[in-house]
Amino acid sequence: MNNQVMEKPKLDVFDQLESEVRSYCRSFKTVFHKARNAKLWDTRGNEYIDFFAGAGALNYGHNNAKIRKKLVDYLLEDGVTHSLDMATEAKETFLTRFREVILKPRGWDHKVMFPGPTGTNAVEAALKIARKATGRTSILCFTNAFHGMSLGSLSVTGNAFKRKGAGVELSHSVFMPYDGYFGDNVDTMAYIEKLLDDPGSGVPLPAAVIVEAVQGEGGLNAASRKWLRRLERLCRSKGMLLILDDIQMGCGRTGSFFSFDDAGIEPDIICLSKSIGGYGLPMALTLLKPGIDIWEPGEHNGTFRGNNLGFIAATEALAYWENDQFRRDIHSRERRMRLTLERVSEKYGSMCGEVRGRGMIQGIAFRKPELAGRLSELAFESGLILETSGPRGEVAKLMPPLTIEMNTLEQGLVIFENSVDKLAAEEVKS
Amino acid sequence: MNNQVMEKPKLDVFDQLESEVRSYCRSFKTVFHKARNAKLWDTRGNEYIDFFAGAGALNYGHNNAKIRKKLVDYLLEDGVTHSLDMATEAKETFLTRFREVILKPRGWDHKVMFPGPTGTNAVEAALKIARKATGRTSILCFTNAFHGMSLGSLSVTGNAFKRKGAGVELSHSVFMPYDGYFGDNVDTMAYIEKLLDDPGSGVPLPAAVIVEAVQGEGGLNAASRKWLRRLERLCRSKGMLLILDDIQMGCGRTGSFFSFDDAGIEPDIICLSKSIGGYGLPMALTLLKPGIDIWEPGEHNGTFRGNNLGFIAATEALAYWENDQFRRDIHSRERRMRLTLERVSEKYGSMCGEVRGRGMIQGIAFRKPELAGRLSELAFESGLILETSGPRGEVAKLMPPLTIEMNTLEQGLVIFENSVDKLAAEEVKS
Amino acid sequence: MNNQVMEKPKLDVFDQLESEVRSYCRSFKTVFHKARNAKLWDTRGNEYIDFFAGAGALNYGHNNAKIRKKLVDYLLEDGVTHSLDMATEAKETFLTRFREVILKPRGWDHKVMFPGPTGTNAVEAALKIARKATGRTSILCFTNAFHGMSLGSLSVTGNAFKRKGAGVELSHSVFMPYDGYFGDNVDTMAYIEKLLDDPGSGVPLPAAVIVEAVQGEGGLNAASRKWLRRLERLCRSKGMLLILDDIQMGCGRTGSFFSFDDAGIEPDIICLSKSIGGYGLPMALTLLKPGIDIWEPGEHNGTFRGNNLGFIAATEALAYWENDQFRRDIHSRERRMRLTLERVSEKYGSMCGEVRGRGMIQGIAFRKPELAGRLSELAFESGLILETSGPRGEVAKLMPPLTIEMNTLEQGLVIFENSVDKLAAEEVKS
Amino acid sequence: MNNQVMEKPKLDVFDQLESEVRSYCRSFKTVFHKARNAKLWDTRGNEYIDFFAGAGALNYGHNNAKIRKKLVDYLLEDGVTHSLDMATEAKETFLTRFREVILKPRGWDHKVMFPGPTGTNAVEAALKIARKATGRTSILCFTNAFHGMSLGSLSVTGNAFKRKGAGVELSHSVFMPYDGYFGDNVDTMAYIEKLLDDPGSGVPLPAAVIVEAVQGEGGLNAASRKWLRRLERLCRSKGMLLILDDIQMGCGRTGSFFSFDDAGIEPDIICLSKSIGGYGLPMALTLLKPGIDIWEPGEHNGTFRGNNLGFIAATEALAYWENDQFRRDIHSRERRMRLTLERVSEKYGSMCGEVRGRGMIQGIAFRKPELAGRLSELAFESGLILETSGPRGEVAKLMPPLTIEMNTLEQGLVIFENSVDKLAAEEVKS
Repeated sequence: MNNQVMEKPKLDVFDQLESEVRSYCRSFKTVFHKARNAKLWDTRGNEYIDFFAGAGALNYGHNNAKIRKKLVDYLLEDGVTHSLDMATEAKETFLTRFREVILKPRGWDHKVMFPGPTGTNAVEAALKIARKATGRTSILCFTNAFHGMSLGSLSVTGNAFKRKGAGVELSHSVFMPYDGYFGDNVDTMAYIEKLLDDPGSGVPLPAAVIVEAVQGEGGLNAASRKWLRRLERLCRSKGMLLILDDIQMGCGRTGSFFSFDDAGIEPDIICLSKSIGGYGLPMALTLLKPGIDIWEPGEHNGTFRGNNLGFIAATEALAYWENDQFRRDIHSRERRMRLTLERVSEKYGSMCGEVRGRGMIQGIAFRKPELAGRLSELAFESGLILETSGPRGEVAKLMPPLTIEMNTLEQGLVIFENSVDKLAAEEVKS
Repeated sequence: MNNQVMEKPKLDVFDQLESEVRSYCRSFKTVFHKARNAKLWDTRGNEYIDFFAGAGALNYGHNNAKIRKKLVDYLLEDGVTHSLDMATEAKETFLTRFREVILKPRGWDHKVMFPGPTGTNAVEAALKIARKATGRTSILCFTNAFHGMSLGSLSVTGNAFKRKGAGVELSHSVFMPYDGYFGDNVDTMAYIEKLLDDPGSGVPLPAAVIVEAVQGEGGLNAASRKWLRRLERLCRSKGMLLILDDIQMGCGRTGSFFSFDDAGIEPDIICLSKSIGGYGLPMALTLLKPGIDIWEPGEHNGTFRGNNLGFIAATEALAYWENDQFRRDIHSRERRMRLTLERVSEKYGSMCGEVRGRGMIQGIAFRKPELAGRLSELAFESGLILETSGPRGEVAKLMPPLTIEMNTLEQGLVIFENSVDKLAAEEVKS
Repeated sequence: MNNQVMEKPKLDVFDQLESEVRSYCRSFKTVFHKARNAKLWDTRGNEYIDFFAGAGALNYGHNNAKIRKKLVDYLLEDGVTHSLDMATEAKETFLTRFREVILKPRGWDHKVMFPGPTGTNAVEAALKIARKATGRTSILCFTNAFHGMSLGSLSVTGNAFKRKGAGVELSHSVFMPYDGYFGDNVDTMAYIEKLLDDPGSGVPLPAAVIVEAVQGEGGLNAASRKWLRRLERLCRSKGMLLILDDIQMGCGRTGSFFSFDDAGIEPDIICLSKSIGGYGLPMALTLLKPGIDIWEPGEHNGTFRGNNLGFIAATEALAYWENDQFRRDIHSRERRMRLTLERVSEKYGSMCGEVRGRGMIQGIAFRKPELAGRLSELAFESGLILETSGPRGEVAKLMPPLTIEMNTLEQGLVIFENSVDKLAAEEVKS
Repeated sequence: MNNQVMEKPKLDVFDQLESEVRSYCRSFKTVFHKARNAKLWDTRGNEYIDFFAGAGALNYGHNNAKIRKKLVDYLLEDGVTHSLDMATEAKETFLTRFREVILKPRGWDHKVMFPGPTGTNAVEAALKIARKATGRTSILCFTNAFHGMSLGSLSVTGNAFKRKGAGVELSHSVFMPYDGYFGDNVDTMAYIEKLLDDPGSGVPLPAAVIVEAVQGEGGLNAASRKWLRRLERLCRSKGMLLILDDIQMGCGRTGSFFSFDDAGIEPDIICLSKSIGGYGLPMALTLLKPGIDIWEPGEHNGTFRGNNLGFIAATEALAYWENDQFRRDIHSRERRMRLTLERVSEKYGSMCGEVRGRGMIQGIAFRKPELAGRLSELAFESGLILETSGPRGEVAKLMPPLTIEMNTLEQGLVIFENSVDKLAAEEVKS
């Protein structure tokens, strides 16, 4: 790491021309230039280890070489790039492979919808079809959920700051406590059941429940398998659809392709995006059980549903899921991360709270929320990119590419640990 | 054109695996494989001339060679592909060029927001900031407007079929008659002014007006320059922001970079997408006058705001706007299209209504709405891709890439004219 | 008139104890004590002629002697006063008489609903059942409509000041231009028809239209018979219910029992209140065609649906409608009022606009809105109570009890005309 | 009781002419004629003891003789009956007495608003001013709350059947668990505090909390004093207003004038109606702390705000609260009722659940919800009027007039107990 020596590039162009809404470029103040797997370099040649992985869009690393080859070949042979939702060979191949590698082994027959290339498109489509299929309007969602920034998705997102951005009342959603929200001793599912059973509760029977198996933005809260299974049963008994938003946690982030694989549930609707595009290319899917795929043709549409570079990259990325090797690799990295986090947590028990998360998205909650942000600054100064999450930004979140080399992971963890040491030292002084 | 001879590929995979919501693949029943500028080929080698141009996302043609070279180079040198909204060299270059080529010549200082890579993201962001900046909530929008499929954008979209898809009441919008909606003799702007002046009208003062200078999906209705200027003045006098949705009509479609360039207005907010990405890659911009760029950092966000392949392609595409040649080329093609359309309209006056549209988006409204759809079928059988628009799908719409070779344009127009002849013959028989 | 001589009572108790929302007591600054037919007296013995008639609740005058007798008898014999919606003899008699006197002669079989004792209850119930019966949600309503102050009624009320009072977005309503809204040359019904016919207009098919035949609060705008008939036809063709809000204009105010009697329409739902209670007692009805009376028992309720004093008074008041005499009396008073108004309008053409209204609700619109308010002040100083209406309070409104003695009417009109003279003199000076 | 002997009158007129929404006349199938204190007689002379008391509107009994005298005198001397919100002597006297008897002894200086003559008017006004005063929109309300049937009040009412009647989505409200909702061991106030403290909970900071100290319609659930005090503190700390809906429980129903007198709280807004009108006459008040009385004149209004017969009756009724005798009388009746209820509950422990309620609104929850309704039938057959409440109608509710003679109360309790015996016998057989 030589970035202390070298100067950082200036951000003048961004300060002058880009909207005030820009955000990560304020935390990670440099101009990036090149990237490979878990590393980034800025225009002055400074090197960074990436523990953020495109907020989960780069599970297969930056510029994955195998995928890149496919993309370049496709471009050079004039493969159709943009096709709206017309049929293309690239899409056909993706669909076929997705069925083989993902759906068939699970015994599923979900239909694949291309709702537009972003996560929020996938969620908006899920909410629409759930309402159409049930004739109900409200959506049951959870404390600290994050589902996206367009109006429908925002209505089921918990964060007050994001919600306020809507500028209008967000409606047709009812928030319920996520697993563990009131501590280990309160059974939040019993609470939800009671409210839905009571005709006087004021809580209408919802069209659907939308849930994340692990809440990434919400602070790395993980639902237990049992809780998810009870939620699925509640959905069945109340005629609600179960929407699993696996946009950030899917594609292997928690250790298996779907984050809820080990819960043994089969959601009616599954939202995928971020890493489904393989190479960080915009792409999203909404998977629908055939019985609720009652769309009229074109009832939902969008210009970029046919981003064929995404299909090419996504198809190649599916190769990681053809056998068990990738899962095992993730698992060994998971343990390596956990080791460091637990050591740090133990060492600084008064400053750090619990270690949270699953698979290769793990973190530590800080007792003073602002410390997580300060840690991110300290880490970045030493060449490590890491973000915070949680309603007060109180969780330092480690989510490297799943494909990170073991030694790069260890380098990153060393920087992380050193940064926590510095933070602790600062805290002692203050 | 040898497509009558060759067999078409089957769509079994799509029928079995893709959601019922798929739509264009039902009209254009083949599997596409390769594409170059204004031509597509399917997997059996059939050739098609493209008068649809990705619904306006392919103004610079399929797989534009100059842009492709930049993309391949960038991929091969490991340029950052996915960057959230961190600063990258590719983005810096795009911002700089956009200012030079687009903003400066107009004397504008709009800030550039990357709201996510699709048109509906751009519109959602526009609505949010308009509400925040004014403290008002409702949006004034227009009959037959189309702005997108997520909940916020849908609330300002006129089409009943699309709106119904929401499954919930769409609120915070008020529809007003577009220019010419009640015929040439009714001044719709006077109507709007009266409603906004009258404290008893029930119409609240809106945060903003959102308008298209030409309504593409709504049936190629074009607003006069005078009407747009009066709308801008009304916005100023009532403290409403003017949002110009130039997603489909921008990037040269009507003959100049912005569709409203000749009206001499300066919208507070401009939405761009579709062809801004140059190569059909997902990308969108929301341009904001500095005074209303009052976002908090991260108040709106999204995973794919940093699609750097889009920035690379978009930067190269701006080259078309460095001098007047491209505009002149569009203009000569516009006239060529108009010639055919007027001839056809005159020949089949009882079947066809007025010729509509501007620049390289033109069409004919049919008196029986279903004839436009039938014409599209006939054209496709002869190797021409063309779509319909309008509230009843009654307009046959011609929108080839702006870069179409003149002889390909003429070939396409011949197929178009022959198809109208066939249609007229069918009508005589029936 | 001796009120210039006598002192006015103080309003200290009201200023100290009553909420700031109080309003008419600010215009008519005295403490009233007794009342008989069209006259009021304050606690100091000052006499006032009442051209306001309880905003239409006192069509049969203050303390109508015949009705009072019935009330006193009922009280003294311990008739049930409060009965929720249990059956009482008083209610039975009212229902029977209402059928005989009002429904039967018109050949109607509307069911009678007691929705609670105020106009806004009647409207809320109408909106609910219209939505239930059609399965649609939005209500088409009109510029400058007034229907009440609870949330549902307010959503179909045009006045911006009243609407703002809601503190939340008012939704599920669409405002359309009332008859004559854009002047005599614009056919507003054609406008509405076009919007409802066009699947791209953004205007959903409403559950119902709610309309007043004459807009009292909105400025005495009167719909033509033809326009109302076209509205009824439009309702039939679009499956919308027609709700006629006759709360202020019904019970004879415009010259016949229903204000729309001469239009020859039969609304699906009719709202009555104000003078239906005969003596100024709280009472309201929602009349429903049997086919849409699909309420579940108790689906709408309210504590004061069974105000039996109201039933007693209302029954007696129906006697006025047993023959034609009352109608003729109203008509002669109508002409007398019109005479004065037209003379005044002619005399002060530069200050006054058109004479408006029908039957015994008539007025003059002032070119400077504030003059109407000033006229009300001047009239009150001379012992005449008269209010303003219209979106800017620009209309001076004359609505005496229908039972006013002819000579009292003439006294009142003299004060009115003298007050206009004073106003004109003030205007000349200023 | 001779009603077994005599025949009941027919309900034909109601069946034919009144809307299907009628409800209590289906449970209590007779036509009532006369009434005095706690007794009613039908047109055939059958006598009934009233344990329903106009759903709380007849706390001072039917046709209270002292109040009646005042009403008759007022009518005979031509006192102003209907006055909109103009000042009248009757209103002045009421305001003065209300301050003396109710506000002053509590050290309060609430302003008195006349929001229209029904409970739902009082609640609509409360919600409006709370939103205006705080600039927030949502209202926190409680499971099994009942606040009224107009759209705003309905949005904070829990009952699903009533809510569905709205026909539109009810918005701007968030339901929270009432005291004891999850059983005695769950601290629901801690739950609410957590949700309001967490910026990620999805629950917005509300404008106000609306709460009943005892939920009458919701099943006689009573909040503890401690819980109410914590609620008040939470309101203060979060800038929410506390709205106490005392419409059914106020005016002595629970033993003191306000149902929350013993909790030692001072709500920002208090809604009163039902028995405030003294004689069962429509009347309602919204009491506002001066600091939030920021209405513009006329921002909320209504035709029947000035029901002077109500003021006359209400003034006289206040005499009951001038000393402690009435409170003591209520208390002795409360104990008498409790005695019977506890005996019954003990005797039929397998059929009956807990005894609920406070003061002179008490009841028993049945394990099979339908038994409460059957009990009401059996009681009515023996000349006792008693209603059910609770989300499934599972609670038999005893709420006689507070002024009931002790021996009539005992007669009623005997019928009640006998009816329970019959019910138990039926249950054994079935």
